[in-house]
Amino acid sequence: MNPVKIGICGLGTVGRGSLEVLTRNSVEIAGRAGRDIVVSHVGARGGADIEGVTVSRDIFAVADDPQVDILVESIGGTGVAKELILRAIANGKHIVTANKALIAEHGNELFAAATNAGVTVAYEAAVAGGIPIVKAMREGLAANKIEWLAGIINGTGNFILTEMRDKGRDFDDVLAEAQARGYAEADPTFDVEGIDAAHKLVILASLAFGIPLQFDKVYTEGISKISTSDVDYADELGYSIKHLGVTRRTEQGIELRVHPTMISKSQLIANVNGVMNAVLVKGDAVGPTLYYGPGAGAEPTASSIVADIVDIARSLAVDPQHRVPFLGFHTQSLSDTPVLDIGSIETGYYLRMSAQDKPGVLSKVAQILSDRGISIEAIIQKEAAAGTDYVPLIILTSRSVENKLMAAITDIEALPAIGGAVTRIRVEALG
Amino acid sequence: MNPVKIGICGLGTVGRGSLEVLTRNSVEIAGRAGRDIVVSHVGARGGADIEGVTVSRDIFAVADDPQVDILVESIGGTGVAKELILRAIANGKHIVTANKALIAEHGNELFAAATNAGVTVAYEAAVAGGIPIVKAMREGLAANKIEWLAGIINGTGNFILTEMRDKGRDFDDVLAEAQARGYAEADPTFDVEGIDAAHKLVILASLAFGIPLQFDKVYTEGISKISTSDVDYADELGYSIKHLGVTRRTEQGIELRVHPTMISKSQLIANVNGVMNAVLVKGDAVGPTLYYGPGAGAEPTASSIVADIVDIARSLAVDPQHRVPFLGFHTQSLSDTPVLDIGSIETGYYLRMSAQDKPGVLSKVAQILSDRGISIEAIIQKEAAAGTDYVPLIILTSRSVENKLMAAITDIEALPAIGGAVTRIRVEALG
Repeated sequence: MNPVKIGICGLGTVGRGSLEVLTRNSVEIAGRAGRDIVVSHVGARGGADIEGVTVSRDIFAVADDPQVDILVESIGGTGVAKELILRAIANGKHIVTANKALIAEHGNELFAAATNAGVTVAYEAAVAGGIPIVKAMREGLAANKIEWLAGIINGTGNFILTEMRDKGRDFDDVLAEAQARGYAEADPTFDVEGIDAAHKLVILASLAFGIPLQFDKVYTEGISKISTSDVDYADELGYSIKHLGVTRRTEQGIELRVHPTMISKSQLIANVNGVMNAVLVKGDAVGPTLYYGPGAGAEPTASSIVADIVDIARSLAVDPQHRVPFLGFHTQSLSDTPVLDIGSIETGYYLRMSAQDKPGVLSKVAQILSDRGISIEAIIQKEAAAGTDYVPLIILTSRSVENKLMAAITDIEALPAIGGAVTRIRVEALG
Repeated sequence: MNPVKIGICGLGTVGRGSLEVLTRNSVEIAGRAGRDIVVSHVGARGGADIEGVTVSRDIFAVADDPQVDILVESIGGTGVAKELILRAIANGKHIVTANKALIAEHGNELFAAATNAGVTVAYEAAVAGGIPIVKAMREGLAANKIEWLAGIINGTGNFILTEMRDKGRDFDDVLAEAQARGYAEADPTFDVEGIDAAHKLVILASLAFGIPLQFDKVYTEGISKISTSDVDYADELGYSIKHLGVTRRTEQGIELRVHPTMISKSQLIANVNGVMNAVLVKGDAVGPTLYYGPGAGAEPTASSIVADIVDIARSLAVDPQHRVPFLGFHTQSLSDTPVLDIGSIETGYYLRMSAQDKPGVLSKVAQILSDRGISIEAIIQKEAAAGTDYVPLIILTSRSVENKLMAAITDIEALPAIGGAVTRIRVEALG
């Protein structure tokens, strides 16, 4: 069979990694794909000199090259990247991308264009780097009604939380190191405020529940307000704090949320440390399954990009309706199940507050919670340090509706005996 | 499109689970597959009454039914099951099976027959139950040279070792409970002597390295000789004992072995407890990835069987050469890399012996090891209990070739100051 010809647009970390893996492992890849896979055209604004490969400074030249079968988009962003992909689709090329923002925000439109053109848009690398989680969700778990999933899907955030726990370091301190090491972006907002994780979670939720991509509906809360004292109290209570993306199907609709989460240390996913990613998926037939690996980096990302290329190469001759559907479900089977507002979700809660060290304060707090049907599952009360009137009071609540809990917090903060704001971290059993 | 018609042979745990999942989740499954999937014919020796389904007491009637597109073999064993599958293949049917013994021992022959007939034999359920590990290996990691793989792939064995560690219980005691709970077979040899794990490892090794299935080459050692004292010493040294299947590509060939293994407690896979399974795979591009989930049970196994059915349904119209190859690599790309003898593999070792409580014994043992280039990485020496002359002496060695280590053990056992046999457990870094 003729070789499959690949065009790569963008020679940053991901583009270079893909070129390297396709070259180094060409024998194994051809043995698996049943035909040779060669990079024939690279688009790189700064130019490049690669033996046997046409290089264009205009990336659109790759999208217009009639020799190219599959275009790898590795320029990032949602502007030019989208224009490039739409052009390549119109030219009948299959697309492989690691661009989570683009898929989460414009995937519905790209998939529709690809359907019209009879080509595919593959994006395994867009979620959890090298972990083949898109394939697991779309194919491996196809027998299941997915009940929920929870993922550590931003490596920088997990690195920061791991260092805070293991070494008692401050958030700002670890963030500076992550930036120096190149884990975090120079503008770390995408990582630590949960936007990157939200992009990935939106994709995972669509795969889980067969709903269209709805990035505007995801609730996002970052880790920048987590203090080392919360990390320590969590540990004392038998929990780790992880920055999780969580999506769950309830009778009312679909929960879709990214936030710091306390989970029992006995959970396998609580032991996923450093920059590693993991996704825990609960299916009604299979039960819990977990997928773990590097969530970023040149070659882990390239591993997923090349897997997509091999998939496409294996099925180039297949008519489009026999391909795996973009979101796992065929378009006519997508559901309009609503995404729930954060106020109506239900979890346990960890509350930390500063309480005056005198009798009766705890009972007032307990009364406020009890009035809203929220019960207390555990309490830590610390001794007052010399010279202070306030002591930390930590409470773990039963599973409660968020709106009720937030109203209770408002009332607690209004108590004269409580100083300042109440810190609130959601608690998940993942059972 | 017409519905895809399924024949199920055998209505034990796996067959009933598959019927249940196909029925209960028919809407989701059809939404993913793009067409309805219906069970049209069941073969069960004892008969059955299932609405809308033809039931035959002769399972071969299912293999001969021209209506059946895909035959699910869930009778088990390697005799009649093989005959049944070959008949169905000859009749142009695709096969889905959870039968690890059959694939490991006769897969090469079945795949050849399927190739001739232009049909597929799918076996996701044969390895690690509900975990989509076959798909991950054949497709998700297709970009990688696989370096090694280590798996907890027998749930009964892992349950026994977990109970021994967490509750200090004896092997025999826990085994009796596992049998009572239905985890272990009445004849537990397949579980505790590692034969079941060996079947799965042989399949995983072929997927990892593109070698034919070679069940006759796997080294197998069970867990029945693990004592609670070894579990305790391992814990003291920072390790867990797990029953692992390990396969690794070295310059000399391929290691293929199932045995109790000490691994650091900080490894994620060391925290896989109870009846759960996990497979840790190291690819050259992706790095380490881990896949975790239930390794057995009616619905986890059905999850994988139905995933295979959906795969086949999605690609029924595809010509055979565009299907994913049986072992991930196309037949002409399979390699004849030799499988190594256990004597030439290299790991670290845990040694436990009974030594006379007098000066000079340790130095003699150390000398024997040193003479063979084996260095000592850690030692535990215990106080003698009142009234005994012997004390336990525990040694962790550097990575060494097994033949040299075994020769050293022979010499150590010949020392007058050493009582009885030396216990030896392999140690893996999995790094």
